[in-house]
Amino acid sequence: MMYDLIVVGAGIVGLTSAFHYVKNNGGKVLVVEAQAGPAQGNTARSVGGFRMGLFTSSINRLISETTVKYYLDVQRGGYDLGIHQIGYLILLDELNYDMYVQRVQELFRAGTAKLLSRDELKSKVGFIQLDLVDEEAQLMGLRPIKGAIFSPFSGYLDVEKLAMHYYEKLVEMGVEFKFNTRVERLKLAAVNKIGHPREPFAWQEKKIEAVETSRGLFEAEKFILATGAWSQELLDPLGIDSYIKPKKRQIFASPAGGELEAFFNVKGFNDFGTLPMTFIPRGPFVAPRIRDRSLWMGLSDDIGRRWGLDFEAEDLFFYDNVYPLLRKIFPVIEGVRPQSKWAGCYSINTIDENPVAFRIMNLIVATGGSGSGVMKADSLGRIAAALAVDRKEVELYGGVKVPSTLLGIRERRIEPEMLVF
Amino acid sequence: MMYDLIVVGAGIVGLTSAFHYVKNNGGKVLVVEAQAGPAQGNTARSVGGFRMGLFTSSINRLISETTVKYYLDVQRGGYDLGIHQIGYLILLDELNYDMYVQRVQELFRAGTAKLLSRDELKSKVGFIQLDLVDEEAQLMGLRPIKGAIFSPFSGYLDVEKLAMHYYEKLVEMGVEFKFNTRVERLKLAAVNKIGHPREPFAWQEKKIEAVETSRGLFEAEKFILATGAWSQELLDPLGIDSYIKPKKRQIFASPAGGELEAFFNVKGFNDFGTLPMTFIPRGPFVAPRIRDRSLWMGLSDDIGRRWGLDFEAEDLFFYDNVYPLLRKIFPVIEGVRPQSKWAGCYSINTIDENPVAFRIMNLIVATGGSGSGVMKADSLGRIAAALAVDRKEVELYGGVKVPSTLLGIRERRIEPEMLVF
Repeated sequence: MMYDLIVVGAGIVGLTSAFHYVKNNGGKVLVVEAQAGPAQGNTARSVGGFRMGLFTSSINRLISETTVKYYLDVQRGGYDLGIHQIGYLILLDELNYDMYVQRVQELFRAGTAKLLSRDELKSKVGFIQLDLVDEEAQLMGLRPIKGAIFSPFSGYLDVEKLAMHYYEKLVEMGVEFKFNTRVERLKLAAVNKIGHPREPFAWQEKKIEAVETSRGLFEAEKFILATGAWSQELLDPLGIDSYIKPKKRQIFASPAGGELEAFFNVKGFNDFGTLPMTFIPRGPFVAPRIRDRSLWMGLSDDIGRRWGLDFEAEDLFFYDNVYPLLRKIFPVIEGVRPQSKWAGCYSINTIDENPVAFRIMNLIVATGGSGSGVMKADSLGRIAAALAVDRKEVELYGGVKVPSTLLGIRERRIEPEMLVF
Repeated sequence: MMYDLIVVGAGIVGLTSAFHYVKNNGGKVLVVEAQAGPAQGNTARSVGGFRMGLFTSSINRLISETTVKYYLDVQRGGYDLGIHQIGYLILLDELNYDMYVQRVQELFRAGTAKLLSRDELKSKVGFIQLDLVDEEAQLMGLRPIKGAIFSPFSGYLDVEKLAMHYYEKLVEMGVEFKFNTRVERLKLAAVNKIGHPREPFAWQEKKIEAVETSRGLFEAEKFILATGAWSQELLDPLGIDSYIKPKKRQIFASPAGGELEAFFNVKGFNDFGTLPMTFIPRGPFVAPRIRDRSLWMGLSDDIGRRWGLDFEAEDLFFYDNVYPLLRKIFPVIEGVRPQSKWAGCYSINTIDENPVAFRIMNLIVATGGSGSGVMKADSLGRIAAALAVDRKEVELYGGVKVPSTLLGIRERRIEPEMLVF
């Protein structure tokens, strides 16, 4: 059985890649996935947050805004993706206020971000603590809050619903899925075999011939590797770099009720009457989830958090690093005990934290969401699909055309995102 | 005992970094090295080849030419570095001739590279075979040779002598060396400790406090990591990326004598009467070594050669990948049996194969020679030393000034080298 294309990974990027490939080219396509169903790896473990008009780098804006517009149109069209535009709120302290305000001037002008003064913040969010002058706050590096950037169109969606949207379309289109099928090796072969047991030799042109999986070998003309945090494990034996490394991220959730109800009773930010997804100085965030009325909390830690696949959520991480800071700014959090916690792995492109999509031989690598993969997945899938058929230009949702090498490494324009929180 | 600076690694980059640091700043400096002496890791395993005026990318030219000029001046000053400017010769086949000739026009104009016709080649190197039209040649992807690029000022040096040059100066300057001392961990700590057993926490400013080694813990204000192919092993636990990966490279050596004498009896290329270091299509090279009259042969293989530390030279690699191609072009090689072989690991910067030098906290990472580290080491050491004292500008040998962020990642201008052979 020879497929036209095998997509490795049924996470959100594998699904969008397969979708755009089949939509444009048809053909016999197989998606292979280690988990029991679509998007049950790191996609399922993500917050599903999306920024809308809240990036400064042009590549970030291009690939996220086109993607999110598509998601919004899907939901407007009647397919519920669980999108809640509760907004993003980034608190600024006395130290970083001027720098951030200067960096997002363009977003203020475009109307996708608004500056809130300290007084506006205090009047909208009665239970917030902005002074932060005591010894404990100083010890943790917290400084008085001077204002905030509010992004009204940002929010989160339900990643499982989003995955099902693409999955259902793929099944309709006749794409074959093999779940519970772990890819163990990408099998390298000579393009023109000579029948020698040790080929391919260094002097032979090469290609990927098949994937060796826990359920046998599957051959195809082309392969898309959409394996996120697992990508480098498959590429190391081939001596190919994905430019990404895995890093653990953790989420801690507590049901609303009691004092935490305060987060769900905030006027003036969104239609749901909640606090936006809020990022406080030094990194912790809190996100009120509408559907299950729970509060999600987390922190993307950097130096000291080792690279590697690790799926164990640690209570101590919450109590050491997230809770002490959140509690200073939101005293109602005092005494919270998360009732659930989970960990996933970002696939971090360490160069500029934007996704990576490139072709080498007949292999397309599409990965490196770096924590913003869900909000860029539709565009990334389009680019991967274009690379699979050697198309030079890709049309993103809404008609914007970009070169298919946009997310490659050699042609990359490194443009660090200035709005990091 | 608190050092001003600890340099991890006494390979060529560690030595140049320590040298330029102490020369400019003095201070109490320790160099820690796992091997028994200087430059006994991958530096010792390298060919020691250098290109002079044979790069197209401006960064490559800048950092290699300044470095090689320094080496040449050292040798002219009476300190023998074993430099032999035997030249580089890159054979071009019918397929790549036009492309390469176009790419190096600027080098032809500058006079650092010359174009040789097929006839000139044949008349200078009587024993070369340029036709390559038989079935075996075609099978291996060899095509008729149409000409060659000759780089008269390139050559190789003795890496051990080069290392001793810096090492002796460092000892003179009072720099302390600890050999047979393997660094097991870079110890992360909070800048302002609070005395908690689990610090540093995510919200604390951090620094490297010490290196934990096989011979105890050593503390310093700053650290330079010049650990080449071993760098990422030390950085993974910290969640920092070096942007480099290790890949095995092998050299096979055969003494001259018999038919191989032909390589040492070639007129018109250099003062030594040898064939230049010669690169043939599809990658294999052959280098006549003057001092011990031996022929070094090798090949930098790419796809299919796994990333990772691996120091085992494989006879089969030579007979499968190097020998069959070299023999077609140099029939005198027929039947050669290398009498020695060794393997080392390149530290490959997978972005653009130029070195990497950046500072994070009080740690400077200087690595990623990618196979051209020896010929860039003096400049890389100057840049690392400048980063260690937060100097924005670096003066390379000969007075050229460059920003110290030149080899950083965020500020990087990716400029792929067009002259790859």
